[in-house]
Parts: sequence; structure tokens; C-alpha cells
Amino acid sequence: MESDSFAIVDINISDKELKSNIDNDLNKNKKTLVPTVIKLQRDRGERDYIGFATLPEQVHRKSVKRGFDFTLMVVGESGLGKSTLINSLFLGDLYRNRKIPDVQDRIEKTTTIEKKTMEIEERGVKLRLTIVDTPGFGDAINCEDSWRVCSAYVDEQFRQYFTDESGLNRRHMQDNRVHCCLYFVPPWAHSLRQVDLEMMKRLHRKVNIVVVIAKADSLTAAEVKRLKARILSDLDEHQIQVYQFPECDSDEDEEFKQQDRDLKAAAPFAVVAADTVLEVGGKRIRGRQYPWGIVDVENPRHSDFTKLRTMLISTHMQDLKDVTQDVHYENFRAQCISQISQHAMRERGKLKRDSMGNNHDVPITDTDRLLLQKDEEIRRMQDMLTQMQEKLKASDKKHDSIIDV
Amino acid sequence: MESDSFAIVDINISDKELKSNIDNDLNKNKKTLVPTVIKLQRDRGERDYIGFATLPEQVHRKSVKRGFDFTLMVVGESGLGKSTLINSLFLGDLYRNRKIPDVQDRIEKTTTIEKKTMEIEERGVKLRLTIVDTPGFGDAINCEDSWRVCSAYVDEQFRQYFTDESGLNRRHMQDNRVHCCLYFVPPWAHSLRQVDLEMMKRLHRKVNIVVVIAKADSLTAAEVKRLKARILSDLDEHQIQVYQFPECDSDEDEEFKQQDRDLKAAAPFAVVAADTVLEVGGKRIRGRQYPWGIVDVENPRHSDFTKLRTMLISTHMQDLKDVTQDVHYENFRAQCISQISQHAMRERGKLKRDSMGNNHDVPITDTDRLLLQKDEEIRRMQDMLTQMQEKLKASDKKHDSIIDV
Repeated sequence: MESDSFAIVDINISDKELKSNIDNDLNKNKKTLVPTVIKLQRDRGERDYIGFATLPEQVHRKSVKRGFDFTLMVVGESGLGKSTLINSLFLGDLYRNRKIPDVQDRIEKTTTIEKKTMEIEERGVKLRLTIVDTPGFGDAINCEDSWRVCSAYVDEQFRQYFTDESGLNRRHMQDNRVHCCLYFVPPWAHSLRQVDLEMMKRLHRKVNIVVVIAKADSLTAAEVKRLKARILSDLDEHQIQVYQFPECDSDEDEEFKQQDRDLKAAAPFAVVAADTVLEVGGKRIRGRQYPWGIVDVENPRHSDFTKLRTMLISTHMQDLKDVTQDVHYENFRAQCISQISQHAMRERGKLKRDSMGNNHDVPITDTDRLLLQKDEEIRRMQDMLTQMQEKLKASDKKHDSIIDV
Repeated sequence: MESDSFAIVDINISDKELKSNIDNDLNKNKKTLVPTVIKLQRDRGERDYIGFATLPEQVHRKSVKRGFDFTLMVVGESGLGKSTLINSLFLGDLYRNRKIPDVQDRIEKTTTIEKKTMEIEERGVKLRLTIVDTPGFGDAINCEDSWRVCSAYVDEQFRQYFTDESGLNRRHMQDNRVHCCLYFVPPWAHSLRQVDLEMMKRLHRKVNIVVVIAKADSLTAAEVKRLKARILSDLDEHQIQVYQFPECDSDEDEEFKQQDRDLKAAAPFAVVAADTVLEVGGKRIRGRQYPWGIVDVENPRHSDFTKLRTMLISTHMQDLKDVTQDVHYENFRAQCISQISQHAMRERGKLKRDSMGNNHDVPITDTDRLLLQKDEEIRRMQDMLTQMQEKLKASDKKHDSIIDV
């Protein structure tokens, strides 16, 4: 890899001669040569420059060309400002024609799923954003239904993706999997209620839950602090795994690290949202006007709205997608496959029994046993691999060449 | 989506009052607030800024963290400078200890596959580069063997990837698929020879072929032009699809478009490579010294080396990977699936016939596929374990407790 390994031959051509050669080249083929010659000289200055450092830019370019998609589920009872928050986050007006159902409707109604998709573009980046709303959530007397509907929706998207991914033609697959679930806790709750805990228990293994305290402008700073602490301890106590922010790389710059720390410290986010734009001293702000003052939605001292927006959109949107793909979807897929294989085993056993009768000793269970054995083997090896990986990590970090396993 | 749809309320707070509010904020919580307030004001200036325009950067960041891999196959008979070209492209010295076999060996020998992997880093971007060489190609009298070996190697990598992708644990998959095949045509050929055509016909549907005219310093400009034209018409006549450069986006800048046009126009690339670094007028160049002058490998008037390097590494490496994934691998996968399902159908049909006679339909079963997949999974994990064990051994020896596997 080092230039020292090449033979170096010294030839006496003066700079002037070389320059005149280059000038000749330029004159002969002026148009195409000018930039290339410059390029060549730059490369020579950086002798070890191969050129693959552009790979991330190649990926960047392709991702822009392809466009992005993101699906966000909002869960919380009526009146917590879910629609307003979504409008504030995405500067949209998705819920302009909403009809608010009267009480009788709300008691009888079951949770339904409302899906809205919009294609938005920002600085040349296209995003297909889908908001999945659960308008009836928690309004009915029996909540079981709400849990079932939300959980089934998430599963159904996974199943669709699994089917598409296993299919013959995968060229135009659409990803409708739920990448994040904003879970709204009312500000008047003293901590997580039974209904919240039950719901999250059903969802936390299949979707990235981000908890928000809604309408936080009805809480004082001290109350916000207390409620946050209670929510965190409830989650901990009930072993509910909400979305975990990934570790910040140690080589990031200090500003990025500080932002990362601030975001982590703010969760669960206490938010205020507003559909109203106020004009305050010549500036237009999204806010809520009370007799005692104006709540500026984007003021970090007034609420965590800006932090939530930064996290959800500007810094962690891709990570939410990656965790959905690598953790939640992979779990779902593994379950699917073992169900299929159990089914196949039973099927095959039945057929074999039918075809061979009962005279034979154990030919029926041969395949079954084999499959089970192999499953066990795989499980055992996975454990070993995990163990060894941890071992490797703990081991000397100065060895940089890491095996890809 | 328009701000006009929001209610606008006019409130008279002077700029001074607002400023004093902000100043108060700053004083109270100086450290964290400073950047956020600045951020807020910028956002207000750009009212329609949601923040998802950072998505490509999020992808960029992740891709750097993950690292890249690329596998390049070189095909061509001995003496065409394959190793020298690879060394010149990647500034490496991969073939330092090569033994050149004598004639008797070359006649009897069958084509073998030689695989070299190196982990290189450039400006923080990590690349795991694998070069697949076919040292005996075309040296033997019967070429059938060469075609078979190369084609089988490409298939085998696809098969491995298919197995991995269908397995239960996909977390540590390695991509060893061949992303590009550099096919070397000798400069003394008048066009593509029978052996070239046969080889390419066997490969062009499974790998991105890039044709290079080797040792082009033995051809005059006119001869290069003629040979290129003949090669292109041969490819056309025999309907061989070598790697097609993607269409350049119309919104790219003019410089990029021009580069793209130049690259397209240069194929098949006539290259000169050199392991020798010459010092010419104080500048070090990779070149070849003849009594009549010096060939500067990187001079675009002397050869297409720089264009090949730009295309292969700096501009189209990711596209070569994407075409491999989206076109060649998907074709392979579709074939695999239909073979498996045909086999499964026959199997099950046999069982059903045994048990029920011929009256019933024959649905597909997954058992066979499952057994095969599990076997492959186990084999793959064993490989990984072996690799990791070696790694652990090589790694810091002060950790004595090595897991026994």
C-alpha cells in the first residue's frame, strides 16, 4: 500500500520542459483537457488518494433520487391535541375538515385507523409522509379494543412487507411499516395510567414508542419535571422499552454531542402545539395567547416542542427507520418463519403418517427431529456468537481491522 | 399546507420588549439557550422549513459508520497487466509475492480463483475491497473450464447471499457478491475473439462487465479508436449487455454532466498501468519510460486509466453495487425460488400420491427449503465462529479467558 514499495526512477526533465508539454496538450485539445489536467495535479499532490471517499456522497445522491418515506402513528385519547401537534410538526393542515363526533358516537364507536399520506418536498428532498391516527382511542369504555386495533395495524404492515419481501418481484416494494408511535399522555395524569401501561406493553416490542406529555402549557415547570420523573420510573418498573436514542459517536463535534445530550435529557417530551400564528413585535410565531402571557411553541423554555421536532425529523428519523427494520421487523419475521416451519413440520408429519401407516418405527419424526435439532443448533450458535462479539468488543480496541460478522 | 390557513392574530409587543424577553431567557440559562435561540430565529426566517431535508445527511452519516464493501473480479489471460492495473487503481501492492508459473504448469492447470481482501480507509471512509482474480484464465487449451469456474464463482456468491437473506438471523450478513467484472481484451486482438464472446455471454446476465483494452501503450490513437469501435459493434452484434452507465440527471451541474459524457464516450477503456513511479521534473508520476518518451498513466491523452478509475471508484461504485443487487441478484433469486418451488411440488406430489392417490391438487410445501436453509445457516455461523476465534486469538493476548467453541 505504500508508495515506497514502487521502484523510483529519476529522470531529468526540467519543469520548463514539462510545462511546455502540458501547454502543448492544452492547445491541442483545449476544451476537454483543462479540468482534467487540474484534477491530475491535485491527485498528485495527494498521493494516497484512491477516490472511494466519495462513496457516502454516492449514497447520498442516490437516496435523494429515490426519495424517502416515513410512517408515524399517533396514539392518545381525543382532545390532547394530536392533530395540532402533527400540523405544527409538519407545517401542514392535515385535519382541516375534521368532524368532532358527539358523546354518544364516542361511547359506542370502536377505535378506527385513519391514514393520511402526503408527499412533501424540502430543498429537493422528497418525503412521503404517512400519519396513522387512531381517532377513537380510549374514548370507548372498553379499551381492549383500542389495543387490539393498533397492535393489529402494526402487525399487518409487517406481514405485508414480509410477503412482499418473500415474493418474486421486489422491484416496487412500498414500505408502510410504522416507524414511530407518538404516545400522548394527558397533562392531568399523575403518572402513567393503567390504560397507558397496557397499551405500551402491547406495542413496545413492535414499534418505536416516543412518549409525549400533551398540552404541557397547563403544567408549571416543577409539575413537568415531576410528571417526567414519574413516567420514567413507571416505564422502568413495568419494563417497557420505549425508543432508545443510539449512542452518540465519540468523534462527533461538541455541538452535536451537546444537542444529543439535550435531546436525551428531555424525554419524555412535554409539548405545546398551536395552529395559531401570532404576530409578536413584527415576528410571526406559532403560539397560544393567554391573559397572563404568550406561549411560544418553539421556545425551548416554554416546551420541548422544538426538541421533539429536531429528534423526530432532523436527527433521528433515519434511525427510527433503521431500528424498525433491524429490530422490530426482524423479530416479527423470525416469529413468522418459525410459525411457518412448525406448520410445515406438522403437515409433513401428517402426510408421512398417511402414506406409511403405523407399521414403521419412527420415519415420521425423522424430519421433525432434524428440524428441531437444527433449530437448537442455530440457537446455540447464536448465543456463542453474541458472547464472542461482546468478548471482542471488550478486547483490545486498538486493533482496527474488525471482522464483519 | 399554507400558512394562510392559520388564524393570524396581531399583538402589539415591541421589538424591544421581545428582545428583553429573550435576553432574560439567555441570562437565566445561558449555556443551553444560546444556540437554540439562534436556531429558532433562523427557522422563523425560513417559515416552511420542516427539517427533513437532513435525511440524506442522516443516511450519509450512517453509511460512513457502517462502512462499505466492494468486490471486483478481473478476467483476462496472463500477461495483460491485470495485477498492475489493480495495484495502480487502488495504490496497493496486492501481488508482490506472486509466482509466475512456467509454461508446462500453465497448459495443464485449470482456472483457479484467487481472492484477496483488504480493508482500506480514506478520509474516514472504510472500504472492504475484495479482488477476485482468475490466474489460469485462457492459458489452458480448453477454455470451457475457465468459463465454468468464473460463472460458478459468481453464482456461488449469489447463492450464499440468498441463503443468508432467507435465514433466521440476518444481523451480520456479509456481501461477497461480485459487483463488477473487469474484462481484459489484449491490444493485439483485432476485435473480440471467440473466447471473449463466449465468456461474456456466460457472464453478462449475472455481473456488470466493464471491458478494458489492456496495455494500450502498444496502440496508436488511431488503432485505439478502431479497436474500440470494433469491440462495440461486436458486443452489439452478439447482444452482449455490458454495464450500462445510468442516465445522468438533468438537474446535475454542467461539469458533472460533461464528466458523465466523457466517461460514457471512453468505454471500452483503453488503459495503461504501471507499478513504477518516475520522477519527472520534480513531480512523481506513475508511468512507463520508453526511448521515445514517457507514458504518464494518469494523462488522459495517453490512456483512459484516469477515466476508468473515476468511473469505477469515484462516481459509479455505488451504482455498480445497486445494479448487482437490483438486477443481477434479483434475477438469480427469482430463478432459485422457482426451482425450489418446483422441487417442493414434486416432492409433496409424491407424498400425496402415496397417501391419497392422484385425485388431489398439489400445493407447495416449505419443508425442503427450510431444511436446506437451516443447513446453510449453520454452515455460515460455523464460518463466522471460526473467523471470530482467529480474531480473538490474534487480538489482545492479555485476555486469557477465550470461549470454547
